Formats: sequence, structure tokens, C-alpha cells
Amino acid sequence: MKLMEEKIWQECKILSGSVLKVSSFLNHQLDTQFIMELGKEFARLFAKEAPTKILTIESSGIAIAFAAGAAMKIPVLFAKKHKTSNVSGETYHSVVHSYTHDCDYTVIVESEYLRPGDRVLLIDDFLANGNALEGLLDIVSQAGAVAVGAGVAIEKGFQEGGKRLRASGLRVEPLAVINYMDDYGVVFD
Amino acid sequence: MKLMEEKIWQECKILSGSVLKVSSFLNHQLDTQFIMELGKEFARLFAKEAPTKILTIESSGIAIAFAAGAAMKIPVLFAKKHKTSNVSGETYHSVVHSYTHDCDYTVIVESEYLRPGDRVLLIDDFLANGNALEGLLDIVSQAGAVAVGAGVAIEKGFQEGGKRLRASGLRVEPLAVINYMDDYGVVFD
Repeated sequence: MKLMEEKIWQECKILSGSVLKVSSFLNHQLDTQFIMELGKEFARLFAKEAPTKILTIESSGIAIAFAAGAAMKIPVLFAKKHKTSNVSGETYHSVVHSYTHDCDYTVIVESEYLRPGDRVLLIDDFLANGNALEGLLDIVSQAGAVAVGAGVAIEKGFQEGGKRLRASGLRVEPLAVINYMDDYGVVFD
Repeated sequence: MKLMEEKIWQECKILSGSVLKVSSFLNHQLDTQFIMELGKEFARLFAKEAPTKILTIESSGIAIAFAAGAAMKIPVLFAKKHKTSNVSGETYHSVVHSYTHDCDYTVIVESEYLRPGDRVLLIDDFLANGNALEGLLDIVSQAGAVAVGAGVAIEKGFQEGGKRLRASGLRVEPLAVINYMDDYGVVFD
């Protein structure tokens, strides 16, 4: 998606050669008009899969997933990283390793919101090692639902997540793929 | 807002007489079409204030704030509760006490995204004790920006936050005000 690549070129910063900072528009400050366009693009890409629900993880996936859900007129469910006082009843959960923060965390979804028969589209801001999406896939599987694909705003193509997920049979649609990055810039696929 | 009250009546659950659970549509699963309507209502309510930016807190404020930002065609900034690896440079931060979780947490905003001259509309899902909004007001003040008001989806009118914020001169607009709740139901203002 040209729009996504142009936005990254215009606004991203690269920290320590490996952290792509897109906080001005994607995951701290949110460019609402731009993200609504991303949502429409995901709706176009996955229309034939007829998803019934979108699943993402708090916090940085929420806005993109919400825009996609608004475009597709389907609900969004965001997995929580902490059990809060308003989580009651049965839950599905899965342990995810974060390479960014070098720790494990548990993602939690209340089971009443994900059911057999749901056709689930996964959405997230980044795909790198793929652990977050694999945690969501685990939750979809626990629910007896079907994952119809994964849409990510930015894939780091030089990391292994995308390859592994596609090899497992999942359709993965990134809006931009970065094949190389260093202190000076990024190279797209 | 009648739409909001009806939705609460139809879908909320009450836990232990005091926790209003709206996870089926507002802060775990997101009813995208409904939340887009809330966003339009905030846009209508605050149009004359001409906000330039919306400020909320992760995670449960993000979808509502995003919908309002999309309707008003302005960016949304969400304060983070944890410093992540892609936070660089100077930050504003404020300590917030959560009565729900009985702990203090720090909310963080990168200072480059909030500037003097910004007219900031605060948005959140709940207003109860008001501590979260006061933390955001503190950040707006640190930035030398102006808070033009606060929009909340649900105010617990029997708690003190709304009174205190209004007494300080802030315009506070809830879409529903709950004046009483127990195990059996809620009573609106």
C-alpha cells in the first residue's frame, strides 16, 4: 500500500538502528483520517473471507483494528494483557514472549465474546517475530473459531514471524513490508 | 444520550453491586458502529470549542477517542501507562491513583505531540473518581496547552470526580450519568 510506505518515509524515526518509531501517526499519536484509510484497505483485502469479528491486542492494535471493524461493520475484540476487575467468568489466555521488552506476558480474552462459528480476522500494528499473532491464533483455536487471516500495518520482512505464519497456512496481509533498516532509513519490499 | 442509556440497559452486567461491566460493547469487545455514533455525538457537543487534538489514556479510552477524532478530523494522542522502547525524547508524565486496581500508575505522553497552542479535548470511557482525567489535565498543563473540555461515555454521578472537575471550571459532557446502581440494575440521571 503506497500510502503506508509514503507515511513511513515522511514521518518515521529509527532508534538504535532497529526500532521503527511511528508514534506520530500509528501507535501513540493517531492520525485518525490515515488510520481510517488503513481500515478500509483491510476491509477490501479481506472482504471475501467474510470475517465476523476482529481480534487484536491492547494497546497499539486497537485503533487500526477499530478502523477495520468500522469499515467492515463487525465488532472488534481486544485481548488484554492484564486481568482487570471487570473481567469476570471464563477466559481464554495464552502466554506471549515480547522480544521488544524481553519478557513474557499473558493475553486474555473473555470466552463469551469468541465462539465456535466466528470467522476471526487478526489485526495488529507490527509483525516481527510473530509471537503476538501466534498468541491470538492460540486463543482463536481455544474458542473453536476459525482464523481467516491476519492484517498488519507494518511487517518487518527481515524477521521470521511472517514466514512462519504463512507456512502454517495463514493468509497474512501487511500494508508495508520493510526488508532492511538501519540508522539512515528503511528499504521496502 | 438516549442511545447510550439504552445500550447500557440492554447489555451491561453489574459485578458485586459496584462494577459496571460494559465489556460486550465498550471496553473489551467494541461495537464499532455504536462507538462511531458516540464519536459523532462528542463531535457535535464540542464543535464550538474547536479542539485541535484529543487526549485519552490506554487502553479503554482509545476506541472512543479514535471515533471522536475521526468525526472531528483531528488527531488523537493516547497517554501510555508504561514506558515502551519506542518512547524516546522528552515526556510529560503524571501519577494517577486507580481506585479500581488500588495502585498508583504513571501516565506518559511524549512532549513533541502536545504543544502550547493545542486545544485539547479529553475523552475517556468512565468518569468516577476523576483521577485519570486529572492526570491528563496535569499533562495538558505541563505542555502549556489548553483543555477545552472532557467527554466521557459513562459518568458515575454518585462519585465525586465530575463535581470536582466541573468546580475547577472544566466543561464535562457525559453521554450517560448513572446516579445509583446495585446488583439489580442502574438508575440514570
